[in-house]
Amino acid sequence: MTTKLPRALRQLIESFERLPGIGPRSAQRLAFYLLHNPEEQLEKFAQRLVALKKETVLCSRCHHISETDPCDICSDTTRNQKLLCVVEQPLDVIAIESSETYHGLYHVLHGVIAPLNNIGPDQLFLHDLVDRLQGVEELIIATNPTMEGEATALYIKEYLEQSTKVDTTKLKISRIGHGLPIGADIEYADGVTLKRAMEGRRQL
Amino acid sequence: MTTKLPRALRQLIESFERLPGIGPRSAQRLAFYLLHNPEEQLEKFAQRLVALKKETVLCSRCHHISETDPCDICSDTTRNQKLLCVVEQPLDVIAIESSETYHGLYHVLHGVIAPLNNIGPDQLFLHDLVDRLQGVEELIIATNPTMEGEATALYIKEYLEQSTKVDTTKLKISRIGHGLPIGADIEYADGVTLKRAMEGRRQL
Repeated sequence: MTTKLPRALRQLIESFERLPGIGPRSAQRLAFYLLHNPEEQLEKFAQRLVALKKETVLCSRCHHISETDPCDICSDTTRNQKLLCVVEQPLDVIAIESSETYHGLYHVLHGVIAPLNNIGPDQLFLHDLVDRLQGVEELIIATNPTMEGEATALYIKEYLEQSTKVDTTKLKISRIGHGLPIGADIEYADGVTLKRAMEGRRQL
Repeated sequence: MTTKLPRALRQLIESFERLPGIGPRSAQRLAFYLLHNPEEQLEKFAQRLVALKKETVLCSRCHHISETDPCDICSDTTRNQKLLCVVEQPLDVIAIESSETYHGLYHVLHGVIAPLNNIGPDQLFLHDLVDRLQGVEELIIATNPTMEGEATALYIKEYLEQSTKVDTTKLKISRIGHGLPIGADIEYADGVTLKRAMEGRRQL
């Protein structure tokens, strides 16, 4: 019962509640916190929200979020053009970039195939992947190691194999390595992870 | 390293990071989530942020957040004017109101005395409490059962006793009851709560 709250406050709480991972209580706390902020601060926050879509684009090649089209990564000719890494989300690009271990190009799907959520291959940037494989030697599928991520990886592999535009005998399709994360404890690892770690063992 | 992110996105992430309980990772997730929202939605959110301070006031009597001054509660003459309940935050008013067990007036301090955070009595709406005690028979101090809340409760009691404007022989000053919350398990209750629960026992 928040009938006693001013409308402006209730509406802001409502806006916060729509965000992922923010429940009614956190939404209340955030709105009340902002109430104690100076007005300029709120206006700055508001401007940034509005600017978000106006000042960003999706790169028409890799679909990563960017200020320019093509994005910095796609237009960087020093990058290895023979490597293409498929990821689910722009944040995955950021994570891989910050690990500084990959210097090829990316392709962002903006999701995974999830039939339960009515997301099929057509809702993703998936079918235009074929047009980007000219000159690519290895395609690394780095979707998440979840059920949907695995299914999407398999779908991509089969889709490319069936496509007449791609010669999969010349294209290496790989999946990012699975196993125990660094710092983990074998004792507490789940069975599936251990199975993958065993399968993915490498000679020392 | 988020150098590859567009400025608009980075700035929005920064704004989210400033909010309490939102770390760098959640801030990223929220900003990326909003990226997939339609532009109208973002503008609505932005408008609500700006409206927050413009359309709300603090009631000049009880300092609760409101659209009007005095607020709905202070201007409701059917409420028991002889009962005054001191709380830390507007959200406490909402919580007590929704429990529907109190029908008196409120006084919102907007904080607690916290020397470690440089918050003394002068930073709170505390000293004007004296002017509101005319005709009040009972003052219920409902600050939180934390160290700061307890200290503030004691401070208020001593402050009123020393004040020449208040006749504390006629004013009953009470503290909200402490003990086990309903649904709790004695086995897991901490010692201080159990001590207070014992002290606050009532005849059946």
